[in-house]
Amino acid sequence: MTLAETEHAAISLDECWARLNGETVARLAVASDIGVEIFPINFTVHDRAIYLRTAPGSKLVDLIKHPMVALEIDGRDAGMHWSVVVKGEATRLSSDSEIEASGVLALHTATSTAKWNYVRILPDSVTGRQFSLLEQLAPPQ
Amino acid sequence: MTLAETEHAAISLDECWARLNGETVARLAVASDIGVEIFPINFTVHDRAIYLRTAPGSKLVDLIKHPMVALEIDGRDAGMHWSVVVKGEATRLSSDSEIEASGVLALHTATSTAKWNYVRILPDSVTGRQFSLLEQLAPPQ
Repeated sequence: MTLAETEHAAISLDECWARLNGETVARLAVASDIGVEIFPINFTVHDRAIYLRTAPGSKLVDLIKHPMVALEIDGRDAGMHWSVVVKGEATRLSSDSEIEASGVLALHTATSTAKWNYVRILPDSVTGRQFSLLEQLAPPQ
Repeated sequence: MTLAETEHAAISLDECWARLNGETVARLAVASDIGVEIFPINFTVHDRAIYLRTAPGSKLVDLIKHPMVALEIDGRDAGMHWSVVVKGEATRLSSDSEIEASGVLALHTATSTAKWNYVRILPDSVTGRQFSLLEQLAPPQ
Protein backbone atom coordinates (compact mmCIF):
# COMPACT_ATOMS: atom_id res chain seq x y z
CA MET A 1 0.00 0.00 0.00
CA THR A 2 2.55 2.56 1.05
CA LEU A 3 6.10 2.37 -0.04
CA ALA A 4 8.73 1.24 2.38
CA GLU A 5 6.08 -0.21 4.57
CA THR A 6 7.81 -2.91 6.48
CA GLU A 7 5.09 -3.90 8.86
CA HIS A 8 1.70 -2.74 9.86
CA ALA A 9 -0.92 -3.59 12.39
CA ALA A 10 -4.53 -2.56 12.51
CA ILE A 11 -5.65 -0.17 15.21
CA SER A 12 -8.96 -1.11 16.80
CA LEU A 13 -12.05 0.98 16.14
CA ASP A 14 -12.22 2.11 19.77
CA GLU A 15 -8.58 3.12 19.66
CA CYS A 16 -9.17 4.99 16.39
CA TRP A 17 -11.87 7.05 18.06
CA ALA A 18 -9.70 7.60 21.12
CA ARG A 19 -7.01 9.02 18.85
CA LEU A 20 -9.54 11.13 16.96
CA ASN A 21 -10.77 12.50 20.29
CA GLY A 22 -7.21 13.33 21.22
CA GLU A 23 -6.43 15.37 18.12
CA THR A 24 -7.69 18.72 16.97
CA VAL A 25 -5.86 19.05 13.67
CA ALA A 26 -6.42 16.71 10.71
CA ARG A 27 -6.02 16.78 6.96
CA LEU A 28 -9.17 16.76 4.89
CA ALA A 29 -9.08 15.38 1.35
CA VAL A 30 -11.90 16.38 -0.98
CA ALA A 31 -12.33 15.44 -4.61
CA SER A 32 -12.58 18.38 -6.99
CA ASP A 33 -13.57 18.71 -10.62
CA ILE A 34 -9.94 18.46 -11.69
CA GLY A 35 -8.41 16.23 -9.06
CA VAL A 36 -8.26 16.42 -5.33
CA GLU A 37 -7.74 18.99 -2.62
CA ILE A 38 -6.01 18.39 0.69
CA PHE A 39 -5.76 20.86 3.53
CA PRO A 40 -5.29 20.94 7.29
CA ILE A 41 -8.34 21.64 9.41
CA ASN A 42 -9.49 21.82 12.98
CA PHE A 43 -12.16 19.31 13.87
CA THR A 44 -14.06 17.95 16.80
CA VAL A 45 -15.79 14.64 17.51
CA HIS A 46 -19.34 14.17 18.79
CA ASP A 47 -21.25 10.87 18.92
CA ARG A 48 -18.74 9.26 16.56
CA ALA A 49 -19.16 11.86 13.88
CA ILE A 50 -16.65 14.48 12.77
CA TYR A 51 -17.53 18.16 12.89
CA LEU A 52 -15.69 21.01 11.31
CA ARG A 53 -16.41 24.43 10.03
CA THR A 54 -15.24 26.32 7.04
CA ALA A 55 -15.27 29.90 5.95
CA PRO A 56 -17.35 30.45 2.83
CA GLY A 57 -15.49 29.72 -0.37
CA SER A 58 -14.47 27.17 -2.91
CA LYS A 59 -13.59 24.45 -0.42
CA LEU A 60 -17.18 24.24 0.71
CA VAL A 61 -18.35 24.19 -2.88
CA ASP A 62 -16.12 21.16 -3.40
CA LEU A 63 -17.64 19.53 -0.33
CA ILE A 64 -21.13 20.00 -1.67
CA LYS A 65 -20.29 18.76 -5.15
CA HIS A 66 -18.06 15.95 -3.92
CA PRO A 67 -19.41 14.97 -0.51
CA MET A 68 -17.46 11.73 -0.09
CA VAL A 69 -14.38 12.90 1.79
CA ALA A 70 -11.49 11.43 3.74
CA LEU A 71 -9.99 12.83 6.91
CA GLU A 72 -6.65 11.70 8.24
CA ILE A 73 -4.66 12.08 11.45
CA ASP A 74 -1.27 10.56 12.04
CA GLY A 75 1.64 10.61 14.37
CA ARG A 76 4.55 8.67 15.73
CA ASP A 77 4.51 6.49 18.76
CA ALA A 78 7.35 4.33 20.07
CA GLY A 79 9.22 4.46 16.79
CA MET A 80 6.22 3.53 14.69
CA HIS A 81 4.01 5.71 12.55
CA TRP A 82 0.28 5.47 12.99
CA SER A 83 -2.51 6.81 10.85
CA VAL A 84 -6.28 6.91 11.26
CA VAL A 85 -8.48 7.61 8.24
CA VAL A 86 -12.18 8.44 8.37
CA LYS A 87 -14.14 8.20 5.14
CA GLY A 88 -17.67 9.37 4.85
CA GLU A 89 -20.17 11.85 3.53
CA ALA A 90 -19.86 15.50 4.40
CA THR A 91 -23.09 17.42 4.86
CA ARG A 92 -23.63 21.01 5.78
CA LEU A 93 -25.52 21.44 9.02
CA SER A 94 -28.63 23.47 8.47
CA SER A 95 -30.25 23.72 11.87
CA ASP A 96 -29.01 25.64 14.87
CA SER A 97 -29.91 22.74 17.14
CA GLU A 98 -27.72 20.34 15.17
CA ILE A 99 -24.87 22.80 15.29
CA GLU A 100 -25.22 23.40 19.01
CA ALA A 101 -25.55 19.71 19.85
CA SER A 102 -22.39 18.84 17.96
CA GLY A 103 -20.09 20.91 20.12
CA VAL A 104 -18.54 22.37 16.98
CA LEU A 105 -19.22 25.83 18.36
CA ALA A 106 -16.35 25.11 20.75
CA LEU A 107 -14.07 25.63 17.76
CA HIS A 108 -13.69 29.25 18.78
CA THR A 109 -11.34 31.45 16.88
CA ALA A 110 -9.88 34.87 17.21
CA THR A 111 -11.17 35.92 13.83
CA SER A 112 -14.28 37.94 13.36
CA THR A 113 -15.42 36.04 10.29
CA ALA A 114 -19.13 36.10 10.79
CA LYS A 115 -20.50 33.48 8.45
CA TRP A 116 -19.17 30.05 9.27
CA ASN A 117 -20.46 26.97 7.58
CA TYR A 118 -20.69 23.91 9.80
CA VAL A 119 -20.06 20.52 8.31
CA ARG A 120 -20.60 17.02 9.66
CA ILE A 121 -18.84 13.95 8.31
CA LEU A 122 -20.80 10.79 9.01
CA PRO A 123 -18.25 7.98 8.82
CA ASP A 124 -18.73 5.07 6.48
CA SER A 125 -15.41 3.65 7.59
CA VAL A 126 -12.85 4.39 10.28
CA THR A 127 -9.57 2.55 9.91
CA GLY A 128 -6.26 2.85 11.65
CA ARG A 129 -2.94 1.16 11.37
CA GLN A 130 0.61 1.30 12.58
CA PHE A 131 3.50 0.91 10.22
CA SER A 132 7.13 1.74 9.62
CA LEU A 133 8.13 4.49 7.25
CA LEU A 134 11.65 5.56 6.58
CA GLU A 135 12.80 8.52 8.60
CA GLN A 136 16.06 8.86 6.75
CA LEU A 137 16.60 8.19 3.10
CA ALA A 138 19.87 7.33 1.56
CA PRO A 139 21.04 10.16 -0.70
CA PRO A 140 20.04 9.82 -4.35
CA GLN A 141 22.49 7.82 -6.42
CA MET B 1 -10.35 28.16 3.88
CA THR B 2 -9.68 26.22 7.04
CA LEU B 3 -11.66 26.70 10.14
CA ALA B 4 -10.20 28.60 13.03
CA GLU B 5 -7.61 30.05 10.75
CA THR B 6 -6.59 33.25 12.35
CA GLU B 7 -3.76 34.28 10.12
CA HIS B 8 -1.77 32.87 7.32
CA ALA B 9 1.19 33.77 5.22
CA ALA B 10 2.38 32.28 1.99
CA ILE B 11 5.59 30.28 1.97
CA SER B 12 7.83 31.02 -1.02
CA LEU B 13 8.28 28.43 -3.74
CA ASP B 14 11.95 27.95 -2.87
CA GLU B 15 11.07 27.47 0.78
CA CYS B 16 8.34 24.98 -0.19
CA TRP B 17 10.93 22.89 -2.03
CA ALA B 18 13.38 23.21 0.85
CA ARG B 19 10.72 21.80 3.16
CA LEU B 20 9.86 19.04 0.69
CA ASN B 21 13.54 18.14 0.53
CA GLY B 22 13.65 18.01 4.30
CA GLU B 23 10.77 15.57 4.71
CA THR B 24 10.46 11.93 3.85
CA VAL B 25 6.87 11.28 4.90
CA ALA B 26 3.87 12.93 3.27
CA ARG B 27 0.18 12.25 2.81
CA LEU B 28 -1.00 11.44 -0.68
CA ALA B 29 -4.60 12.16 -1.66
CA VAL B 30 -5.96 10.37 -4.70
CA ALA B 31 -9.46 10.56 -6.12
CA SER B 32 -11.27 7.24 -6.37
CA ASP B 33 -14.43 6.13 -8.09
CA ILE B 34 -16.43 6.69 -4.92
CA GLY B 35 -14.61 9.56 -3.26
CA VAL B 36 -11.05 10.07 -2.22
CA GLU B 37 -8.22 8.11 -0.62
CA ILE B 38 -5.59 9.55 1.66
CA PHE B 39 -2.59 7.69 3.02
CA PRO B 40 0.90 8.36 4.33
CA ILE B 41 3.80 7.63 2.03
CA ASN B 42 7.55 7.93 1.76
CA PHE B 43 8.72 10.15 -1.02
CA THR B 44 11.82 11.75 -2.43
CA VAL B 45 12.48 14.84 -4.53
CA HIS B 46 14.53 15.03 -7.71
CA ASP B 47 14.67 17.99 -10.12
CA ARG B 48 11.56 19.49 -8.53
CA ALA B 49 9.47 16.41 -9.09
CA ILE B 50 8.13 14.02 -6.45
CA TYR B 51 8.97 10.33 -6.59
CA LEU B 52 7.40 7.53 -4.68
CA ARG B 53 6.84 3.88 -5.05
CA THR B 54 3.93 1.67 -4.27
CA ALA B 55 3.41 -2.01 -3.88
CA PRO B 56 1.02 -3.42 -6.48
CA GLY B 57 -2.61 -3.02 -5.56
CA SER B 58 -5.65 -0.84 -5.62
CA LYS B 59 -3.87 2.37 -4.72
CA LEU B 60 -1.90 2.28 -7.94
CA VAL B 61 -5.06 1.53 -9.88
CA ASP B 62 -6.54 4.68 -8.42
CA LEU B 63 -3.43 6.61 -9.47
CA ILE B 64 -3.77 5.40 -13.03
CA LYS B 65 -7.49 6.09 -13.25
CA HIS B 66 -7.27 9.37 -11.35
CA PRO B 67 -3.79 10.75 -12.04
CA MET B 68 -4.36 14.26 -10.66
CA VAL B 69 -3.18 13.90 -7.08
CA ALA B 70 -2.26 16.09 -4.13
CA LEU B 71 0.60 15.51 -1.72
CA GLU B 72 0.86 17.33 1.58
CA ILE B 73 3.46 17.82 4.28
CA ASP B 74 2.96 19.88 7.37
CA GLY B 75 4.45 20.66 10.71
CA ARG B 76 4.74 23.21 13.44
CA ASP B 77 7.33 25.89 13.69
CA ALA B 78 7.56 28.62 16.31
CA GLY B 79 3.98 28.18 17.39
CA MET B 80 2.58 28.27 13.86
CA HIS B 81 1.42 25.45 11.66
CA TRP B 82 2.75 25.23 8.16
CA SER B 83 1.61 23.14 5.23
CA VAL B 84 2.97 22.58 1.75
CA VAL B 85 0.74 21.05 -0.93
CA VAL B 86 1.94 19.73 -4.28
CA LYS B 87 -0.69 19.12 -6.94
CA GLY B 88 0.10 17.41 -10.18
CA GLU B 89 -0.19 14.43 -12.41
CA ALA B 90 1.08 11.06 -11.25
CA THR B 91 2.62 8.83 -13.89
CA ARG B 92 4.13 5.41 -13.53
CA LEU B 93 7.77 5.30 -14.53
CA SER B 94 8.30 2.79 -17.27
CA SER B 95 12.00 2.92 -18.02
CA ASP B 96 14.83 1.78 -15.78
CA SER B 97 16.83 4.87 -16.65
CA GLU B 98 14.06 7.17 -15.44
CA ILE B 99 13.79 5.19 -12.24
CA GLU B 100 17.53 5.23 -11.62
CA ALA B 101 17.89 8.93 -12.41
CA SER B 102 15.15 9.88 -9.98
CA GLY B 103 16.93 8.60 -6.90
CA VAL B 104 13.74 6.82 -5.88
CA LEU B 105 15.71 3.61 -5.57
CA ALA B 106 17.18 5.15 -2.43
CA LEU B 107 13.83 4.44 -0.82
CA HIS B 108 15.20 1.17 0.46
CA THR B 109 13.11 -1.00 2.63
CA ALA B 110 13.52 -4.07 4.74
CA THR B 111 10.75 -5.87 2.93
CA SER B 112 11.38 -8.36 0.20
CA THR B 113 8.46 -7.23 -1.93
CA ALA B 114 9.90 -7.71 -5.36
CA LYS B 115 7.61 -5.80 -7.67
CA TRP B 116 7.59 -2.12 -6.83
CA ASN B 117 5.87 0.39 -9.01
CA TYR B 118 7.63 3.73 -9.28
CA VAL B 119 5.58 6.86 -9.64
CA ARG B 120 6.50 10.43 -10.48
CA ILE B 121 4.34 13.43 -9.67
CA LEU B 122 5.06 16.35 -11.96
CA PRO B 123 3.85 19.40 -10.06
CA ASP B 124 1.32 21.75 -11.59
CA SER B 125 1.34 23.79 -8.43
CA VAL B 126 3.35 23.94 -5.23
CA THR B 127 1.91 26.11 -2.50
CA GLY B 128 2.76 26.62 1.12
CA ARG B 129 1.40 28.67 3.92
CA GLN B 130 1.68 29.26 7.61
CA PHE B 131 -1.37 29.61 9.77
CA SER B 132 -2.75 29.22 13.26
CA LEU B 133 -4.88 26.25 14.17
CA LEU B 134 -6.30 25.57 17.58
CA GLU B 135 -4.23 23.21 19.68
CA GLN B 136 -6.79 23.00 22.44
CA LEU B 137 -10.51 23.03 22.00
CA ALA B 138 -12.98 23.98 24.65
CA PRO B 139 -14.98 20.93 25.71
CA PRO B 140 -18.27 20.44 23.84
CA GLN B 141 -21.19 22.28 25.43
